[in-house]
Amino acid sequence: MPTNYRSFRNSLPWLLLCLQGGLIVLFYFFFSEDGDSPIESYPAFQDVNHMVGFGFGFFLLVLRRYGFSSTAFNLLIVALGVQCSALIEDNLGFLLQGRKESHLERLTKAAVSMTAVLISTGAVLGKANPVQLILMTIVEIIGFHLSRCLNKYFLQVQDEVSMTDAPLFGAYFGLAFSFQFSEPLPRSEKNRSTPKSDLLSMLGTLFLWVFWPSFNFVLSGQAHVQAIYNTYFALAVSTVTAFLLSALTTKDGKFRMTHIHSSVLAGGIAVGYTALSNNYPWIAMIMGLHASVINILGSHCLQRCLYPPLKFHDAAGVHFTFGLPAVFGAVVKLILLIITNWTQLSSLSDLIMVHVGAISLTIGIASLLGFITGFILNLRLFKTIPASKYFEDQCYWE
Amino acid sequence: MPTNYRSFRNSLPWLLLCLQGGLIVLFYFFFSEDGDSPIESYPAFQDVNHMVGFGFGFFLLVLRRYGFSSTAFNLLIVALGVQCSALIEDNLGFLLQGRKESHLERLTKAAVSMTAVLISTGAVLGKANPVQLILMTIVEIIGFHLSRCLNKYFLQVQDEVSMTDAPLFGAYFGLAFSFQFSEPLPRSEKNRSTPKSDLLSMLGTLFLWVFWPSFNFVLSGQAHVQAIYNTYFALAVSTVTAFLLSALTTKDGKFRMTHIHSSVLAGGIAVGYTALSNNYPWIAMIMGLHASVINILGSHCLQRCLYPPLKFHDAAGVHFTFGLPAVFGAVVKLILLIITNWTQLSSLSDLIMVHVGAISLTIGIASLLGFITGFILNLRLFKTIPASKYFEDQCYWE
Amino acid sequence: MPTNYRSFRNSLPWLLLCLQGGLIVLFYFFFSEDGDSPIESYPAFQDVNHMVGFGFGFFLLVLRRYGFSSTAFNLLIVALGVQCSALIEDNLGFLLQGRKESHLERLTKAAVSMTAVLISTGAVLGKANPVQLILMTIVEIIGFHLSRCLNKYFLQVQDEVSMTDAPLFGAYFGLAFSFQFSEPLPRSEKNRSTPKSDLLSMLGTLFLWVFWPSFNFVLSGQAHVQAIYNTYFALAVSTVTAFLLSALTTKDGKFRMTHIHSSVLAGGIAVGYTALSNNYPWIAMIMGLHASVINILGSHCLQRCLYPPLKFHDAAGVHFTFGLPAVFGAVVKLILLIITNWTQLSSLSDLIMVHVGAISLTIGIASLLGFITGFILNLRLFKTIPASKYFEDQCYWE
Repeated sequence: MPTNYRSFRNSLPWLLLCLQGGLIVLFYFFFSEDGDSPIESYPAFQDVNHMVGFGFGFFLLVLRRYGFSSTAFNLLIVALGVQCSALIEDNLGFLLQGRKESHLERLTKAAVSMTAVLISTGAVLGKANPVQLILMTIVEIIGFHLSRCLNKYFLQVQDEVSMTDAPLFGAYFGLAFSFQFSEPLPRSEKNRSTPKSDLLSMLGTLFLWVFWPSFNFVLSGQAHVQAIYNTYFALAVSTVTAFLLSALTTKDGKFRMTHIHSSVLAGGIAVGYTALSNNYPWIAMIMGLHASVINILGSHCLQRCLYPPLKFHDAAGVHFTFGLPAVFGAVVKLILLIITNWTQLSSLSDLIMVHVGAISLTIGIASLLGFITGFILNLRLFKTIPASKYFEDQCYWE
Repeated sequence: MPTNYRSFRNSLPWLLLCLQGGLIVLFYFFFSEDGDSPIESYPAFQDVNHMVGFGFGFFLLVLRRYGFSSTAFNLLIVALGVQCSALIEDNLGFLLQGRKESHLERLTKAAVSMTAVLISTGAVLGKANPVQLILMTIVEIIGFHLSRCLNKYFLQVQDEVSMTDAPLFGAYFGLAFSFQFSEPLPRSEKNRSTPKSDLLSMLGTLFLWVFWPSFNFVLSGQAHVQAIYNTYFALAVSTVTAFLLSALTTKDGKFRMTHIHSSVLAGGIAVGYTALSNNYPWIAMIMGLHASVINILGSHCLQRCLYPPLKFHDAAGVHFTFGLPAVFGAVVKLILLIITNWTQLSSLSDLIMVHVGAISLTIGIASLLGFITGFILNLRLFKTIPASKYFEDQCYWE
Repeated sequence: MPTNYRSFRNSLPWLLLCLQGGLIVLFYFFFSEDGDSPIESYPAFQDVNHMVGFGFGFFLLVLRRYGFSSTAFNLLIVALGVQCSALIEDNLGFLLQGRKESHLERLTKAAVSMTAVLISTGAVLGKANPVQLILMTIVEIIGFHLSRCLNKYFLQVQDEVSMTDAPLFGAYFGLAFSFQFSEPLPRSEKNRSTPKSDLLSMLGTLFLWVFWPSFNFVLSGQAHVQAIYNTYFALAVSTVTAFLLSALTTKDGKFRMTHIHSSVLAGGIAVGYTALSNNYPWIAMIMGLHASVINILGSHCLQRCLYPPLKFHDAAGVHFTFGLPAVFGAVVKLILLIITNWTQLSSLSDLIMVHVGAISLTIGIASLLGFITGFILNLRLFKTIPASKYFEDQCYWE
């Protein structure tokens, strides 16, 4: 369908031009002057930057004919989203933080927020065209900041805490967003991986694995060194559990690469919620173990039982890779809250309500916004590619 | 031509032995004792080290049959050039800086200087044999330090400022150097890329993209945190513009990978000149936009109109990837100088003359030296490989 | 042999479950509270973490059909070994250090210790099954800490010094361990590399090359910045020498990729022993030169003359890549000790005896323990895979 491809020429460049032009104008008027940037936070920023610019791009490189698009669209989304996010962060910063942040802090937070968007793109990997991805990025970044503001104003949730919801928000936004995209054709080989693409995806996974302690460290406001070792131990236990369960659930006791890919990170995501308030590595380790179990069992149940009747297709499995471990982390945080505040029964119910409310609010906004965005972006106006052209670089690259 | 290949055995090892032996002797006599190395600068050094050792090696991995040579010769050139550069840096340090630098600072500067050489190798990628590359490295490193000295003594240009000329020097040296190398054979497939080599080159590009803020930060003397966020925003806008223009200039609105490769870095290079003196990210963003435009339009004009009549071939497109954005950055710096010093008309003309003089001097020395080096190294003595054997690993690897 | 493969299902998951469960229980009881973790050491920890999690996984990716196993088993071993090592480190910390260390320091040391295990896995790359690798990891980590304790108590060797023995211990443990594994079948193509696997292995090598200065810096207790530049210069000279000797020893003066892979790191390993006590880069450079010579000549002699009559097969060449340069480094340290203490003849003989004793003790424990472990793990109980199935991902991956 050549008309379909040619259409990008008339839409994509002008969309990018408007967005980029608008952003530069907005930066001119609304990007405040720099506070005092502490150079100490630079290595942590660089690690998060590496994760979003490089790690996710290669992590999502699982499809055999979609390598260019996986890595390059990831870069485009990061480049656009970080600008957008830094601008919103700057203008909401005083509201959310009660203090003026430096540019470097804003940029770090913007990069952390981008993980939500990059996770969402995984749910529609190979199905959404660049125009849809770009519009989704803008909507999701605004939605994520909106969710943080609502959490702050209705539930007095601290900003550091609501930042940890990024993987959760991204997973459920992506899931709801992907609802309107049709399933891939049956008997299609294109949404499979090859050993080569699996190996390059392993490269991205290893980068995310190595940098996830930095991610949780940045999330926790960079004062809590326990976030680093808790995350590290949780990731280590997740990895061991991933191999354990992979050998247990497959025929002949062999390992399956997709299990390893999705499961080794589960501990890091789960522990993000409790990394800064937890001084005992063994709690992080037990969380890593369960996160990995939830991940692999979740992937079996969802992909075999729940999704087929719903005619649902989660391309890179973001629901069980990022969503379920994040929900589990939030539940563990609730349990730890209850245990540590057991003596003050009066304030306990308040604490529980705030925590449950914050998570529900985040998931609710993410799902609702994702569904609406998915619905609008699947109108004829945005000319979605046909399901037979899914998962192909050829549609987008010379 | 077996004689041609065998000849390396009689030349290359002895050349390397003489150079390495000479360097060790020179280090014994002329490498001064360590100043007080500040350990704070270590992460920034490590980032630059990563860029030159790894990033450029994979960035240049674009040719289908030249993967081993791209990465391995890059490492050889870095290993040899950094020693050479650190030695010169140490002995010129007092002249250029007026103070004793520490070993770690010298090593960082040596690694930054190496970017000039690595950019130059891109212009003759697949054409120059190892002997030519090694001799070119030595000459170019000496030439770059000579250019910095002349800038310092004739024009009182500060050393931090003349270090930012590294990409400019490298691009024009490489361009002039490549003048004497014959064009590749017509209808040759070997100087094309494959999807696989493009993907590995994307890996290198992403590394350079992630580390370029560190590069400009190191260039600016590591006291100016604005270099980090200015570079980041410029790179982000460059990236968006690269996709925009790629979809606009190709048939059917598809993207072209070479556009993305060369163009996403343009903003970082351009903003290197003004990163430390500029407190407004929107200026960096506009520079990123224009740098990317210049890059893609430059690549069209140069490769279609200017190069064919001149019988000129810029293998990895270093002229428009590194040269033109650097020239553009220098022009913007001049404009910003004029605007900020508008009131002091007396000193303004001096400022303009010094700035224009410094850039002209750098380009002049680079081009002249590159041309002479290219001429000498294409004499029969250095036994160049025939054009039919260009772009092949087989000539150099078992 | 389907029975052979199916057996993993009945052994591997339960082994991992017991180990991981046991580790969590031990962490609950025996992992002490955090000391004051200095956040300054975080970038260095991250570099070492990157080396062990990513660098070694891709460094060992040399076999054509063993890519999944190389990278994924590396991750599994790191995840399991770091927990084990951090636990032992914590409980021995007071004995070895005489002071309470922080969690981050323990984790860093645990990651450094893991290099010994990862080097050992290289000697049986493609031959040992996951059960054997896991048990080897546990035994070797305990053995390495035992060796450090014995060095401390019998020879009063400082803990920082005995940590530098990690590559030496790993190489000789691996060598002795591999003794019981049968040779690969003659005329088998599977234990060869392909250009593609060589390129990905180059990626891992470049990462190790870039991060080795951090490794020696961490080893030296992070107070000695000379470890960084000494290591860097030694690596640079090693690299130049590797190309020199590769062109000299091969037919037609071409380069051989395996020479480059194994030889560029030799200088970093050798200089590990003297990096902190040495203020003169030229000494490090001479060490880098000789380490590379020893590496390449060693690989020729060992692989052609010594190994075939012994029916010995060192899969990734860890003996000449890591073992011989480490022995050379220890010898140079001895020579430097003699030179600097020449005037105090009374204490000199003591110093020499302690140093020679420490190295002999380390090599002795490593070899003995490796041999015993290899013998036990090759009993029928552990169901080794037949030599015809060596070097294949298919045995372990769906």
